[in-house]
Amino acid sequence: MTKIDLNQSTKEEMSKHSRAISSVVDAVGDENKVSRAIGKLKQLQIAIPSWALGTGGTRFGRFPGGGEPSSLAQKIEDVALLNRLNKSSSSISLHIPWDKAENIEELKKLAKSLDLSFDAVNSNTFQDQPNQSYSYKYGSLCHTDKEVRQLAVNHNKEVISIGENLGSKALTVWLADGSIFPGQHDFKSALNRTLDSLSEIYSSLPPDWTMLLEYKPYEPNFYSMVIPDWGTSYLLVSELGDQAKTLVDLGHHLPNTNIEQIVSTLLFKNKLGGFHFNDSKYGDDDITVGSLKPYQLFLIFCELVKGMDDDPNLDLSWMIDASHNIKDPLEDLLQSVEAIKIAYAQALLVDYNELAFYQNRNDISQCQEILQEAFRTDVRALVREARLQLGGVYDPIKSFRENKIREKLISERGVNSKATGL
Amino acid sequence: MTKIDLNQSTKEEMSKHSRAISSVVDAVGDENKVSRAIGKLKQLQIAIPSWALGTGGTRFGRFPGGGEPSSLAQKIEDVALLNRLNKSSSSISLHIPWDKAENIEELKKLAKSLDLSFDAVNSNTFQDQPNQSYSYKYGSLCHTDKEVRQLAVNHNKEVISIGENLGSKALTVWLADGSIFPGQHDFKSALNRTLDSLSEIYSSLPPDWTMLLEYKPYEPNFYSMVIPDWGTSYLLVSELGDQAKTLVDLGHHLPNTNIEQIVSTLLFKNKLGGFHFNDSKYGDDDITVGSLKPYQLFLIFCELVKGMDDDPNLDLSWMIDASHNIKDPLEDLLQSVEAIKIAYAQALLVDYNELAFYQNRNDISQCQEILQEAFRTDVRALVREARLQLGGVYDPIKSFRENKIREKLISERGVNSKATGL
Amino acid sequence: MTKIDLNQSTKEEMSKHSRAISSVVDAVGDENKVSRAIGKLKQLQIAIPSWALGTGGTRFGRFPGGGEPSSLAQKIEDVALLNRLNKSSSSISLHIPWDKAENIEELKKLAKSLDLSFDAVNSNTFQDQPNQSYSYKYGSLCHTDKEVRQLAVNHNKEVISIGENLGSKALTVWLADGSIFPGQHDFKSALNRTLDSLSEIYSSLPPDWTMLLEYKPYEPNFYSMVIPDWGTSYLLVSELGDQAKTLVDLGHHLPNTNIEQIVSTLLFKNKLGGFHFNDSKYGDDDITVGSLKPYQLFLIFCELVKGMDDDPNLDLSWMIDASHNIKDPLEDLLQSVEAIKIAYAQALLVDYNELAFYQNRNDISQCQEILQEAFRTDVRALVREARLQLGGVYDPIKSFRENKIREKLISERGVNSKATGL
Amino acid sequence: MTKIDLNQSTKEEMSKHSRAISSVVDAVGDENKVSRAIGKLKQLQIAIPSWALGTGGTRFGRFPGGGEPSSLAQKIEDVALLNRLNKSSSSISLHIPWDKAENIEELKKLAKSLDLSFDAVNSNTFQDQPNQSYSYKYGSLCHTDKEVRQLAVNHNKEVISIGENLGSKALTVWLADGSIFPGQHDFKSALNRTLDSLSEIYSSLPPDWTMLLEYKPYEPNFYSMVIPDWGTSYLLVSELGDQAKTLVDLGHHLPNTNIEQIVSTLLFKNKLGGFHFNDSKYGDDDITVGSLKPYQLFLIFCELVKGMDDDPNLDLSWMIDASHNIKDPLEDLLQSVEAIKIAYAQALLVDYNELAFYQNRNDISQCQEILQEAFRTDVRALVREARLQLGGVYDPIKSFRENKIREKLISERGVNSKATGL
Repeated sequence: MTKIDLNQSTKEEMSKHSRAISSVVDAVGDENKVSRAIGKLKQLQIAIPSWALGTGGTRFGRFPGGGEPSSLAQKIEDVALLNRLNKSSSSISLHIPWDKAENIEELKKLAKSLDLSFDAVNSNTFQDQPNQSYSYKYGSLCHTDKEVRQLAVNHNKEVISIGENLGSKALTVWLADGSIFPGQHDFKSALNRTLDSLSEIYSSLPPDWTMLLEYKPYEPNFYSMVIPDWGTSYLLVSELGDQAKTLVDLGHHLPNTNIEQIVSTLLFKNKLGGFHFNDSKYGDDDITVGSLKPYQLFLIFCELVKGMDDDPNLDLSWMIDASHNIKDPLEDLLQSVEAIKIAYAQALLVDYNELAFYQNRNDISQCQEILQEAFRTDVRALVREARLQLGGVYDPIKSFRENKIREKLISERGVNSKATGL
Repeated sequence: MTKIDLNQSTKEEMSKHSRAISSVVDAVGDENKVSRAIGKLKQLQIAIPSWALGTGGTRFGRFPGGGEPSSLAQKIEDVALLNRLNKSSSSISLHIPWDKAENIEELKKLAKSLDLSFDAVNSNTFQDQPNQSYSYKYGSLCHTDKEVRQLAVNHNKEVISIGENLGSKALTVWLADGSIFPGQHDFKSALNRTLDSLSEIYSSLPPDWTMLLEYKPYEPNFYSMVIPDWGTSYLLVSELGDQAKTLVDLGHHLPNTNIEQIVSTLLFKNKLGGFHFNDSKYGDDDITVGSLKPYQLFLIFCELVKGMDDDPNLDLSWMIDASHNIKDPLEDLLQSVEAIKIAYAQALLVDYNELAFYQNRNDISQCQEILQEAFRTDVRALVREARLQLGGVYDPIKSFRENKIREKLISERGVNSKATGL
Repeated sequence: MTKIDLNQSTKEEMSKHSRAISSVVDAVGDENKVSRAIGKLKQLQIAIPSWALGTGGTRFGRFPGGGEPSSLAQKIEDVALLNRLNKSSSSISLHIPWDKAENIEELKKLAKSLDLSFDAVNSNTFQDQPNQSYSYKYGSLCHTDKEVRQLAVNHNKEVISIGENLGSKALTVWLADGSIFPGQHDFKSALNRTLDSLSEIYSSLPPDWTMLLEYKPYEPNFYSMVIPDWGTSYLLVSELGDQAKTLVDLGHHLPNTNIEQIVSTLLFKNKLGGFHFNDSKYGDDDITVGSLKPYQLFLIFCELVKGMDDDPNLDLSWMIDASHNIKDPLEDLLQSVEAIKIAYAQALLVDYNELAFYQNRNDISQCQEILQEAFRTDVRALVREARLQLGGVYDPIKSFRENKIREKLISERGVNSKATGL
Repeated sequence: MTKIDLNQSTKEEMSKHSRAISSVVDAVGDENKVSRAIGKLKQLQIAIPSWALGTGGTRFGRFPGGGEPSSLAQKIEDVALLNRLNKSSSSISLHIPWDKAENIEELKKLAKSLDLSFDAVNSNTFQDQPNQSYSYKYGSLCHTDKEVRQLAVNHNKEVISIGENLGSKALTVWLADGSIFPGQHDFKSALNRTLDSLSEIYSSLPPDWTMLLEYKPYEPNFYSMVIPDWGTSYLLVSELGDQAKTLVDLGHHLPNTNIEQIVSTLLFKNKLGGFHFNDSKYGDDDITVGSLKPYQLFLIFCELVKGMDDDPNLDLSWMIDASHNIKDPLEDLLQSVEAIKIAYAQALLVDYNELAFYQNRNDISQCQEILQEAFRTDVRALVREARLQLGGVYDPIKSFRENKIREKLISERGVNSKATGL
C-alpha cells in the first residue's frame, strides 16, 4: 500500500484556523451550537462506492487516468487513503459481480486493519456478464420470461449472502429495467412482475438488514423505467415491508424536481433509507457533490437534520455515487465529501425552533433570512475542526497533492491499470 | 337561448363519409372492430368546465372576446350548444363560488330541459372572495392557522352540499397550497395539516360520491406545492379511503414526465379517478387538447382502454380543463372534444392481445408497428359516424361558423359580457 | 413622504463587523483585494423597476398587501426609501403607460431631491389599454396588420421621448409577441415584421441611447415567442446596429440553460446590454434574487467581473425584475439587492489570473477549488462595509422593520392602495 | 452479399393499396396535390450513417445483436439492403477514423455497383484512438494546447480529403468539446480558440463543399458545451463564410425547445445545412425517428416544405442519427425512414397559401384545423406508392422478416461480429 507521510499542520495554519472558528462563533452568536455542530460533523461517515475509484465515461468514450485500483484489495486501500486524509470515509460499498472476491476472509482482514467497514452491497442486473445463462437485454426483475427474473432474483440473493459475510447491513437495488419505445412494455405487468421479484428477494433479507430501492426517470431506458419516481419506489417498499426503504440518488429526477420535499415526505412516512450523493445540471450527470447546486444540497440537509432531530434512531445510508470522467477520482471524492460536510455544517447552524416560529406566523422574509444566514456563513473551519479532532489532515486535497499520491499510485500500478465497473 | 338551425349533411358529404368508413375498415381489416369502436365512441361523454366558456388570460393580461356567458344559466346554454353540435358534451362541471346559483331548482330544470347533467363540482380555495373572513394568501387546507383551514374545509363541505342538490357525484379538489421560498413551509407539517383537513372533508362525502384529488408541481407557488406529484396524491388518497381517487391533469407535470405510465400505475392500484384534459409544451399551458402532443394523448388512451377492458366497472371522470386565451372558447372546446375522441378511436383500434403477444416475446419493433398503425389510421370518419348516429352534426366547427353562433351570442350578450372565473 | 429615523449602528455591531472584515482578509489572504472589492461594491447600483413596488400575482389570483404606492411620486419615494437603507438603489425604471406622468418636471424635481435618477424606460405592448385603437391580442411589433405594428412602433417612440425628458439613456423592449398554437404564426414572416418594426424604433433612438432587447422562451405565449432565445435577440440586435444590445432576464430560459455561458458569449461579441435579476425554479417565477440558485448567480457575476476587467468602458444596465406575490415588496427588494451584492463580492474575490493559469493546465479540481473558495467565503461584511461607507444602514431589513416602515406606509396610503402594473 | 428474393406484392395488397390512395385523394380533395406529393416523396433520399448499422449502447452497457457489419464493405452492403427495400436510402455517411478504408477505390466500385453514393463525412475528435499523439480528454478544437488543436484540425482536413476521394460534398463537425465543472473553461477563450480552429478547417474546404456545424447542449460534457445551441453555431458559421451551415440534430436541445422555429430562423438567414433525424423524450436519446413525437416531426417538415418552396436551390443534408440499443438496427432504420417520409407526405398535403390566408386574418382555429387535417390524413399509401414506383417493396419491415435477412446476416457474419463505432 502507498506510503504517505502526512505533515502536521503548521503553526500559521493552526492560528488561522482558530481565528476562523472564532469568527463562526461570532457570526452564529452561540458557542454551544458551534460545538454541537462540530460534534455532529465528527459522526458523519460517507461510504465510498468501489466503482467511483476509477475513471468513468460516457457512451462516447472514456479517458482513463493512471494508477487506478485493479483489484478489490487496491480499492479498499484507496478508500483507506481517503479516510486517512478526511476521516469521514470509513466504509466502502461493493458492487457485485464487479467486486466479487475469491478470498473474502483476507479482504475482511485487510479492511479491519485499515479501520474500514463494508457498507451497503449493490447488485447488478443491468449488464450481462460473460457466460451468463440469460440476457438482461430486455430487463431483469421485470422480464417477461420467468427464467430471466429468477436469474436476477438469485443474483440478488447471492449479493445478500456475500454482504452477510462482509458485515454489510443493506442491499441497494438499482433497477435499470424499463422500455425504450411506447408499446414495448405493458406497464402494469412489468410493475407487477417487479414487485413479485422484489418480494422474493425481500424474503431472503436477514432480519437486521435493509433493502434500499432506488428510482430513476430515464437512462439507460429512454421511454419508461419500471421504477421512475419516488412514488413508485414508495408504493413498492410499502408493499414489501418495514425493512424496505427508498433510496434517493440526487441525479435521478426530472428537471426542476424539488428533491428536499421528497426527502421530507419519505421521512414523514418513515420510508427514507439513504442517499446517493452527486450533483448534476441536466440528467444523471454524476458530477462532484456540491459543484453545481450547493444551496439545494443545504436545503436537503436541513430536512435531514430535522428528521434526525425528530427521530434519534433514524438510520440512514450515506453514499457518494459519482462518475469521475476527467478529474482524478480520489481528488473528486475528497471534494465531494467536503461539500457534503459543509452542507451538513450549514444545516446544523439553523435554529429550527426559531424557523418554526416564523413559519407559523407566515413571516416568509424572515424564514428566508434564517436559512440564508446559515448558508452564507463560512463553515469550512468547522468541517476542518471536526476532521482535525478525528486525526485527519488540515487540507485533504493539498495533502493529496503534496504527498504526490497519484504519482505514487501510478508508479505502483501503472498508467493502464483499470478499475472494474462502469 | 340562441336559436340555431343545423343543416343536414349533404349527399356529397354523406357519400364521402361512407367511403371514409370503408377505408378504415380496409386499413383495420376487421369490420367488427370498427363497429365496436363506433359503439364505444358514442358512449364517451366529456364534461365541460364552466370556467372554460369565457376568455382566459395570463398574469400579463387578458384579451376578452365577446358574447361570453355572464350567468350560470348562460353557461349551461353554451354547453348545450356544444352538445347539440358534437353530442359528446352532455354535462357541465361547476366551480364554486364562481357558479354559486341563487335558484338551484330553476337551473336543474334548465339543465334537464337541455339534456345536460352536472359533473364533478370544484371547490376554490386559491382566491380570496370579497369579505372573506380569513385570507388564503398563505394557504388553505395546509394553513398554519386552524381557523383558515376550517374556513377552507367548510367551503368544501358547502360545495359537496351544492353538488348533492345538483345531482353531482364527485368533488374535485385542486389545492394551490404551497410555498414560494425555501424555508417558508415545514413540508412535513404542511402535508400533515393537509391530510387532516382532507380527512374532515372526506368524512362529509356522501357514500356514492368520489373525492378527486389533483396534484401539480408548481404554479401559483414556485418553490413547492403541498401536493406536487402523483405520489403525494396517491399517498393521501390511500390514507383517506376508497372513495378518494387521484385526478390527472395533463398539464400538471414536470418536463418529460411519462404521464401514460402514471395512469397505468394508478389503474394498477385502483386509484385513478379521472382526467383534466388539455395540452401543453412548457408548463400548465392549458391549451387545446391534442394541439401539440397527439401521440402522447393516444398513448394515454391506450392505457385507459386497457384499464376499462380489465375492469368494466371502472368509473372515470372526464373533463376538459383549458384556458382559451385567444381562440373562441366554444370553437376551442369543439376542437378539444374532437381530439379526445380521435385519440380514443385510435386506441380502440389497437389489438391488445396481439400487442401482449409481441410484448411477451420482446419483439419491440412489432409492438411499435402495432401502435403506430393504429395511430396513423385516419379515424375521423369513426368519430363523425358516432356523432351522426347520436344526432350531432357532420362538422361541428363548420356548423358553428355557418350558423354564425358567435355573432349571435355577441348580439345577445354584448361584446363586454364577462364569464366569471379565471 | 414617510419619515424614518435610522439608528446608528451600535458599538457592539460595529466591533463584530470589524472582526468579520478581518476574518475575510484572513480567508482571502490579501488585504488589497478586499479593499478593492469594497470599492467596487460601492459603485454597483441596481435599478428598481416601478412595477415591483406593489404586490404581484398569477393568473389564479393576487393577494395584495397594504401601503402600496398608488402614484408615480409614491413609487419614487419608495425607491428613495430603499436607497436610504442600502445605498445601492439610486435609480428607478419606469414602465409606460403605467408610469405615464402628467407633470414630468415635478417628478424630475422630486427624484433629484431624493438623489435618484431614471434608468431604462420600458415599453408595454403586451396589454391593451382602455380605448386603444387596435388590440395587441395577436401581437404588436410582429402583427400581421400594419396598423397594429405602427401603433406599437409609435408607442415605443413615445416611450423614448418620455425617457429623454427624464434623463434615461436606454429603452428596454420586452416583446410578448408569439403564438399559442402550431400554425398560428408563419415564423419567418413574424420575425421579419418584427425586425422591420424594431428598425423603425431604432431609427428614433437618440445617439447616446441603447436599445435593450429581451428574449423569452414562453409565457404569455405557449407555443412560440418571436424572440425566444439569446440567439434570436443576438441576430436582431446585430442587424439593428451598435446601439442595440441583448438584455438577459435570468428567468427567461428553458430548463437547465447555462446562463453564464450566454453572458460570456454576448460579452465576446460586445452585445450584452444588461440584466433583469430574479430567481426561479420552474419558469419565469420572478422570485427574490439569490433565493434559490445563489451559486449560479455567483457564476454569472464571475463572467461579469471578467468582462468589466477586460473592457473598462463596458456599460451594463442592472435591474431587478421580480414579482412579489406574498412577501412585502420592499423587504423583497432589499433581499434581492443584498443577494446581488453578495454574489458580486464573491466574484470579486476570485483571482482570475490564477484561475486562467489552472485552466490552461486543465487542472480542473483546482479551478473548482478557486471558485468554491470564493463562494464559501462569508462576504456579508464586505457588502455591509460598502453600504456603511456610503451612508447606508447596518442591516436594511432590520431597520425596515424596527422603523415600522410598512406600518407607516399603510397608515399613510391605506390597505387598499394599488400600484399599477402587473 | 446476402441474397434476398423479394416477392412481388400480391394482387390483394395492390388492390387494397389503390383503394387507400383513392381515399387520400378523397380526403384531400385534390388529385394533383396528391400526385405532386408522391413525386416529391420519390425524390427524398435519407443518408444512413455507418455507425447506426450496429448495436448502440449506453455507459451502463451494450447488448449486441448478431450479424453486425464488421467492415466498411459490409456496412455499404447493409445500406444497399435497406435501399433495395425502401428506395430512399441511397447513400451512406462515414465516420472517420471508424470507417477509414485501406482500399478506397474498391469501396467506391462497390458503392457504385450498388447505386449508392457517399454523403457527408464525419470527423471524430471526441475519442482517443490508439497511439494518438495527444489526447482529446480536455477538448479538441477548443483545447488550451495548440498542439492538440492542430491534431484535431489536421484530422478534419484528412477527413475532407478522404471525402473528396469518395465524392462526398460535405463535412459534418460535431464537437463534443466542453466542460464538466464551473471554472474548467474560460468560455470566451474556448469559443475563440474553436473559431480559429474551425477557420483553419474551413480554409481547406473544396469550393463545392459545405461545412455542417452541429450544436448540442450537453453530453458528454455536463456543465457547458462549446457550441451548446443554434445561436452559437449560427454565430460561428456566420463568421466562417457562406459554405458553413448549421446542422440540426433533433435530440440536441434542452427540454421543451421549439425546434421547428429554429429551423425556420436558420432558413430565414440561409444558414440551415441539414438534419440528423431521431427522436427523444429526455435528452439525446437517439431513438427511432417519429417513435415519440410524430407531430413535432410533421411541424418541422412543414417548415422544410415552405423553405424548399421558397428556394428551389435549397440544398439540405438529410441523415438519420440514431442509436439502436435493443432493436434490430436495420428494422429500426426502416422504421425511421418510413416515419420521415410519412411526416414529409403530411407536410406536402398542407396548402400553405390557404394557411397564410388564415394566418393573416389571425384565424387561429382555422390554422390549427389546416395542419391537423393534413396530419390526421392516413398518408401511408402515398409513401408506399412512391416506394413502389421506384422499385421498392410493399412493406419493407415485412419483407425484411419474410426474407429472414437478419438470420442470413448472422449465419454469414456470426453472432459476435461488431460494427465499429459507438
